[in-house]
Order: sequence, then C-alpha cells, then structure tokens
Amino acid sequence: MTKRATLADIARKVGVSESTVSRALAGSELISDDTRLRIARVAEQLGYQLPVLARSVRGAKTQVVAHLTDTPTLEFHARLAQGLHEAALRHNHLLVTHPSPPDGFREEQYLQILSALAPVGVVATPTTSNLSLIQTLAQKFPLVTLDRDVEVGLHAVLLDNKQAMRQGIEHLVELGHTRIALLVGKDPMTVSFERRQGYLDSLRALHLPIDPSLMVREEFTEAGGYRAARDLLDNRLECPFTAMIATNGDMTLGMMRAVKDVGLKVPQDLSIVGFDDSRYHLLMDPPLTVITQPAYEMGEHAANLLFDHLDHPEVHTARVRRMPASLVLRKSTSFVR
Amino acid sequence: MTKRATLADIARKVGVSESTVSRALAGSELISDDTRLRIARVAEQLGYQLPVLARSVRGAKTQVVAHLTDTPTLEFHARLAQGLHEAALRHNHLLVTHPSPPDGFREEQYLQILSALAPVGVVATPTTSNLSLIQTLAQKFPLVTLDRDVEVGLHAVLLDNKQAMRQGIEHLVELGHTRIALLVGKDPMTVSFERRQGYLDSLRALHLPIDPSLMVREEFTEAGGYRAARDLLDNRLECPFTAMIATNGDMTLGMMRAVKDVGLKVPQDLSIVGFDDSRYHLLMDPPLTVITQPAYEMGEHAANLLFDHLDHPEVHTARVRRMPASLVLRKSTSFVR
Repeated sequence: MTKRATLADIARKVGVSESTVSRALAGSELISDDTRLRIARVAEQLGYQLPVLARSVRGAKTQVVAHLTDTPTLEFHARLAQGLHEAALRHNHLLVTHPSPPDGFREEQYLQILSALAPVGVVATPTTSNLSLIQTLAQKFPLVTLDRDVEVGLHAVLLDNKQAMRQGIEHLVELGHTRIALLVGKDPMTVSFERRQGYLDSLRALHLPIDPSLMVREEFTEAGGYRAARDLLDNRLECPFTAMIATNGDMTLGMMRAVKDVGLKVPQDLSIVGFDDSRYHLLMDPPLTVITQPAYEMGEHAANLLFDHLDHPEVHTARVRRMPASLVLRKSTSFVR
Repeated sequence: MTKRATLADIARKVGVSESTVSRALAGSELISDDTRLRIARVAEQLGYQLPVLARSVRGAKTQVVAHLTDTPTLEFHARLAQGLHEAALRHNHLLVTHPSPPDGFREEQYLQILSALAPVGVVATPTTSNLSLIQTLAQKFPLVTLDRDVEVGLHAVLLDNKQAMRQGIEHLVELGHTRIALLVGKDPMTVSFERRQGYLDSLRALHLPIDPSLMVREEFTEAGGYRAARDLLDNRLECPFTAMIATNGDMTLGMMRAVKDVGLKVPQDLSIVGFDDSRYHLLMDPPLTVITQPAYEMGEHAANLLFDHLDHPEVHTARVRRMPASLVLRKSTSFVR
C-alpha cells in the first residue's frame, strides 16, 4: 500500500474540485448522483477512508460485499463463506451473508433492501429459484457467481466438475468396478449437468459400457438422494451394480441413509463415494471416501476476482474460473468381489 | 397492519413540517443528525416505506438487521440464522449474517463498516473474543444476544441450560448410571458455567456422589472435546465411569472421535449423549442420543424481541428469555452392565 489517499487525490483523478469531492462523499444532494458515484468509485480505488462519523449517518457506497447463498447447513457452504469473508477483510470490506429470499418475497422489495446496503459488489450462488433475481442484480452491481454458472456477471468461480467426477470414476474402475450407479441433480444447473457429463465422459474414456438405468436424476437434496439410492438398491437384482457415487453433500447424506436402511455392508457389499467433505464423514462406519471441493479457496478466489475488478474495471479476463477437486480416500470403497 | 403511513403522519408525531420529514428521509444535510434520527425512528415505527430510488443512493436507517455470529459450521448455527432470517423477513427486514471480526481487525474499523450498514438492530452471539465489541455495539444499536448472555443489550435469548443437563442426567440415571463423565467448556461464558452447574445440580438432586475428576473442562471445540474425552478414557481403569455427556456440538464430534479411537463399543462398553443435533447423528453407529436446542425458535424469538422493542421502545420486559431443550433418544445409551 502507498500513502493514504486524500481528497485532493480524488479530485484530481475525477476532474472536480476538492469541495465537490468532500460534499459528494458526505452524501450531499447538491452533487448529481452520477458525479457522486464516479467520486465514490475513485475514492474506493484509491483506498480513501472516510472519517467514522461521516460514514455512520450518510450513504454512498459502503465497504460491504453482499453474499447471497443457499441455506448453508453443510460445511461446504460454511467454508465458501469463510473464504469469502476472510478475503473481503483483507480488502478492508465486510462480507454480509444472507439466504436467498424465499418464495413470496417480492424481488423489488428485496432489491430495495439490498440497494440500501449499497454493497460494492455481490457474490451469489445461483439456484433455480433465485435465477431471475441474480440476472437483475448483475445489472446493478458487479457480480460474481460461485459454485454454479448462469452466464451472467463478471466471473463464475466453479469446480472443475468433469475432473471431479473423473477422479471418483477412475478410482472405482481401478478397484475393478464396471457398473457404477450415479445419483445426480435433476435441476437445470451447471453442477447437475456437468457432473452427469463428467460421469459419462469418464466411462467412455475408459471404454466402459453406459447403462442409463444406473444414472438416477433426482432433487439435489437429502430426500432426493435417499429416493434415488433407494430406487437403485431396491432394484439391484434386476439391475446390478457394485459401486455408487453421490454428487453433492445433501445427496450424500441421503445415499448413506438408504444404504444403512437396506442393510448393505460397506464396502463388502457396495463401494460408495460421497461428494463434499464434512467432519462427520470420518466418524462414519466405515469412514467415507469423498470427492471434495476446495470450498475455502473458491470463496477466496471469488472475492479476489471482485476486488480485482473494482481496482481495474478496464481489464477483462476470463469469465469462468475452474478450481480442481480432490479425492479423499477413506474406507468406503474396496476391490470388487 | 393499518393503512400505509404518510409523510404527514410522521411530521405530526415528530412535531416538524412535512418538508422537513421529506428532506430528512432523503438524507439532506440541511437537517440536524438528531432530528434526522428521530424522524427515521418514527418512520420505522409507523412502517413508512421510502420510494425505492431514494433509498438506493441515500442513507438513514435501512431495513437491515445485522447478525454477528461465530463461524457457523454446525447445523445449530445454521438453524439459529434461519429462524432469525425468516422472522426478519416477516417484519420486512433483511438479516445479514457475518462472522465475528477476527483478531487483528480493529474494533473501530469494524464499527465504521457496520455503521455504514445502518442496521435497525443487531443480534449477536457473544464469544470470549468479541465481548468488548458487543459491549460497544450495545451502546449504538438495539442489541439482542443469542445463545450466550454477557449482561448487555435489550434481551438475551438462551437455552434453559440447567433443564437441558437435567434431561440428559435423569435419562442416564434411570438406566442405572451413577458415574457419568462430563465434557464442558472452560471459557467464562454462560453456556459453560450453566451446563456445568446443571450437571452438578442434577446429580445432587438425585442424591448421587460428585467426583470432580469426572468433570473435564476444555476448549469448546472438536479438539477440546477430543482431548477431554481421551483424557477420561485413557484413565478409566483408575477413575471408572459408564456414561459420558458432551455439552456442545463441536465437543460432541471430539467425543465421538475419541471413543472410536479407543475402540470402545457404544452403548455396550459406554453410553454417550451428545449436544445439539445434526443430520449426521442418525447415521452414526449407533445413532447418537442428544440433548437438542430449539435453534430455529431461538433465532425467531430473538428477532421478534428486537422488532417488539422497535415497535414499542417504551415497554420494558424481562431481559433474559429461556427456551427449553429436548432429549432425542436414539441408540447410544443403554442400561448399565
């Protein structure tokens, strides 16, 4: 960091007087909204710090990044938020997280509240229900999407979903499995599509036959994972398989519950691979092998891309960023018998 | 709800002209901060809605409730936040959650950012590290503490910790256990003190001897729970016990890991009771019996108390509210052998 920016620095860069800068930063109505926003943007670029009291009652942009997320009940979501939060703090901004507004909450009402926060930018995890809202947000704020891509905003920070699935499939094929069941989301989101595609591509690359009846599309929830797994398990005499992969954290919970209810021994009767890690996975009997996302780093990267844009709005770089998955080997897979 | 409030309603109640109200709500510098805040408060009481555009660039109070929390990696935290969020929405406000600022982040810097959000109130979960910050926040914003009490703010919404511990102890004593080990926090927070006290009171009420060496105080973390449980388990020949209770979600994880590492069979060799529920507890071998908090309802109640105060600031009611715990019986406890 160089020396602390002054009003004069901002005035010079915007091409207005120091008193105009001072009034604009204090939220004066004498300055046009347009000029005020240009000044606020330059002040931020230069790292100008408003006196505490002036900020506390007046508006313009704040030092806030808004984070619109799914209901964060899994460690994956908490780690995403933690990475975002800590990167935002390193840029002297506060990350504020809130779940997507539920059905029945009007988009206009939500935008009014969010606009009053005056965030410098928004990071959002798209879902089927908040898609239209995110499209609107992308018009109003610098926006980065996280975990899922809906082709709006500055950047999308995503898992390399095909590489993720390849790791799981290659591991199982090395153990001799050739009939591998898949539990995957049925919504039109990138995570569902790409993980399904990754499964198919990996099997093809390994010259294994594809049996569409082993690929069950269901809701990306615990209940969806349970139904999908239960359906496969209940029909395994007619349509046999020796391994099963779930493709998100909630479905993983449903898969484990279904396997337990049916009374199969893991990994003797069935090898299973989960998706997204949890501290609880170590305590499972047996401990669960999973495909994991670098959640903290994904959050961190999303925040850094947003701040890069705020610092250098003229630079255009790749919109989609992919982060690699890892395979954490525990005890829920074994050689096929 | 009655009819929509007008500028005239606000002007009448504050005792100023309509044009003063209009200017104040638009953030005009011609109005003193004091008058502006009085007007904003009355406007909120009356449920006055600013036009969307005026709100988007100017300041005064927003429709935001800030939620300062611990790192929310467990379902307990997610459910607290969900209860808060949904209750805030029912009052037409948005809840914004963020973790406590980490060490090294200056309090003044944090307050500057939070003040720019202009929340109508703050809900905070005190920790040993954010105590001084929460005391400062209570001077500036209507504040409700959640989960823990530090004797500041309007209200504290807490678990009835003694009743919670009594449920766990009475269940174990009914099964014949008389030597029950306790893993409890060592920080000076109400949750640590009250849960420890609840254990002692329950044993005394049941006329059971108290052995201080069965009560291990450690950090309220997974690692702390592991160390405490491991210490007890490694010395169980000299200092025997037949059951063990953990007193928060993180310690419960550490307890389960220690029991697994030592190779004891649950419940045959040892009965265990966890604290706070998780979807994963059903999947444990055996499924874990836990003392649970009504987390969603606690969050909801905290938000409702805050809005009650904003609607009726003149009404003073009990500062500390207690919510009852439940015992969820699964398979990790059995009759003593």
